Amino acid sequence: MYASARPTVTALVQKGSAARLSLVTHILNNPPTVYFNPCASCSLTQRSGLLSGRQLSTTPHARLQEKYFPPPDKTENIKITPPAWHHPMYTEEQMMAIKVAHRQTQNWSDWTAMAMMRIARWGMDTATGYSHPTEEAKKRGSYLGLAKIKSWLSPSPMTERKWLIRFLFLESVAGVPGMVAGSVRHLHSIRRLRRDNGWIETLLEEAYNERMHLLTFMKMAEPGWFMKLMIIGAQGVFYNSFFVSYLLSPRTCHRFVGYLEEEAVLTYTRVIEELDAGKLPKWQTLEAPDIAVRYWNMPEGHRTMRDLLLYIRADEAKHREVNHTLGNLEQKVDPNPFVSEYEDPARPHPSKGIENIKPTGWDRNEVI
Amino acid sequence: MYASARPTVTALVQKGSAARLSLVTHILNNPPTVYFNPCASCSLTQRSGLLSGRQLSTTPHARLQEKYFPPPDKTENIKITPPAWHHPMYTEEQMMAIKVAHRQTQNWSDWTAMAMMRIARWGMDTATGYSHPTEEAKKRGSYLGLAKIKSWLSPSPMTERKWLIRFLFLESVAGVPGMVAGSVRHLHSIRRLRRDNGWIETLLEEAYNERMHLLTFMKMAEPGWFMKLMIIGAQGVFYNSFFVSYLLSPRTCHRFVGYLEEEAVLTYTRVIEELDAGKLPKWQTLEAPDIAVRYWNMPEGHRTMRDLLLYIRADEAKHREVNHTLGNLEQKVDPNPFVSEYEDPARPHPSKGIENIKPTGWDRNEVI
Ligand SMILES: [Fe+2]
Ligand SMILES: [Fe+2]
Ligand SMILES: [Fe+2]
Ligand SMILES: [Fe+2]
Repeated sequence: MYASARPTVTALVQKGSAARLSLVTHILNNPPTVYFNPCASCSLTQRSGLLSGRQLSTTPHARLQEKYFPPPDKTENIKITPPAWHHPMYTEEQMMAIKVAHRQTQNWSDWTAMAMMRIARWGMDTATGYSHPTEEAKKRGSYLGLAKIKSWLSPSPMTERKWLIRFLFLESVAGVPGMVAGSVRHLHSIRRLRRDNGWIETLLEEAYNERMHLLTFMKMAEPGWFMKLMIIGAQGVFYNSFFVSYLLSPRTCHRFVGYLEEEAVLTYTRVIEELDAGKLPKWQTLEAPDIAVRYWNMPEGHRTMRDLLLYIRADEAKHREVNHTLGNLEQKVDPNPFVSEYEDPARPHPSKGIENIKPTGWDRNEVI
Repeated sequence: MYASARPTVTALVQKGSAARLSLVTHILNNPPTVYFNPCASCSLTQRSGLLSGRQLSTTPHARLQEKYFPPPDKTENIKITPPAWHHPMYTEEQMMAIKVAHRQTQNWSDWTAMAMMRIARWGMDTATGYSHPTEEAKKRGSYLGLAKIKSWLSPSPMTERKWLIRFLFLESVAGVPGMVAGSVRHLHSIRRLRRDNGWIETLLEEAYNERMHLLTFMKMAEPGWFMKLMIIGAQGVFYNSFFVSYLLSPRTCHRFVGYLEEEAVLTYTRVIEELDAGKLPKWQTLEAPDIAVRYWNMPEGHRTMRDLLLYIRADEAKHREVNHTLGNLEQKVDPNPFVSEYEDPARPHPSKGIENIKPTGWDRNEVI
């Protein structure tokens, strides 16, 4: 069914960028078996050792599959368990239009959210050894007086593996807020015997979406034991502190997530730029894993690593919009603008997709 | 849109049971305005004071609406916020086939679950003043040596209002396990970087379904302040203890919920029997609230209180099947049988609906 997922030479030529053309020449001059050697135990294609143990993972590819994604043929009766909640369709045009954005802090709640986000971000950067070699990043480091420590902690530039490990860590943390917010609102609704106005489903689906990001990256690399411990520790701290925070001030929590997602969009935008600039050669022809093709319903010929990053960045931009908007609303009485029907459907309004996406969120009077 | 929700005399005559026929005669002999007097502030119909403050609620109907379900016309732009997750279709035949059932305890885990359920049930019965005037119930009371205390605590037979308050309490508690199980499995998946195999969505949708039961009953009655305090207290205790229990033994927890749902099916079966026996006269012609008609997609002419109870009982039977089945599986590796595609689709297999429902759950070797 997904056999045609591999980009053909024609498709690559049609894409036509100089970097890709030289790559095509390179492929044509090398034995294709090296590049399109399907893994015996799963549907992923191994290319020039890209996914083998030495470079990107401490576990060989086949064992990584076995360990985290037990093959369905171990079950006698069940063929496949498809994702239950469907992802909205994004067009390439919509995804290309996603931009880095920032919502100005307007009050104490925003400012608190921003400060918490900066602390969280610094912790994550240190944990994942992230150092982006741009002037902006250097400035940000020195702004906190941390430029030297940072360069000491992570002297090397970002490689494909370092990016993947960073993504894994970030996405593992990113799955927490939606689940907490959904849980707390659910508990509130059944405890106070009040309707929820449609927020819960969007929040839980956000958590699910983040988990799909994580599982997709898990198809490509496995972190070492130290990073795994960090992930477990981070969840313990973050789940509990976010739970308490959400009980205290859901508004500030949504704003916090909004700011976090601003950073996520920034990160994915940078990695796409690096990829386009040819700085991540191992990803130039890498195709998206099957799990991603199925989940995002990626059209044929648009199933590369670059396409995958475009989808994920659009998802993060969606979370940014959703959380900034929810942070603008009356938590207890306002309906969820993303699943509501409007008095005037012709006027642009929030939706589940990204056709009317608003980077800094919708103001309350625009939607309610 | 839902104006045709009210049962017409013809529809009632077509249903044809003796009880209903005498009721039709009764309606025809009484001024219809008393019976079909729509509430000015909402779409519910008030009949002979059924939903007014004095009998079923401490708050008049209009204020109850205002308080718990703020009317959408308070919002300028938003028309309606429909339920996000769709309920599977049940046919009347399928719903009538739902039977009381019990899965025998087979090991220590089952026995623990059963014991916990009995304790929980006794607590709930006491809290909601539930005393079912059957020999079986009396026996159960005396089995614990509690017959006298029970009769002292709740000397009167069950009235419509007492039933509703009991439902509200039970459904408020019932929304907890699915949310906890879904949360814990989600956290496990993103912490251990492992796929979940499709369980989370079913568990969260179960929690959502229970919340819809609660909101439906909230349209009909409001508990007093003491019961409200009990609901808040019960959630605090139950959410935390179920969370810890699910971390320790998810199998036992699913079995526990399975047993709880056995009782839920029993309770709703009894109330349907009482209704049919004419013991709950206020519900004879009561129609289901709009929220229920929309959520269950109740067909025209099948929108009475009795139909509503049939839908809810079928939901509980579904939860009974789901949780007994999940309790039979390997928690960490088995896919969710209720959302999977099967090697042999012709053979009866678990699904989201109730067409192949198995009261005591599916054994592992039947589905995996
Ligand atoms: Fe993400
Ligand atoms: Fe995100
Ligand atoms: Fe229920
Ligand atoms: Fe239930």
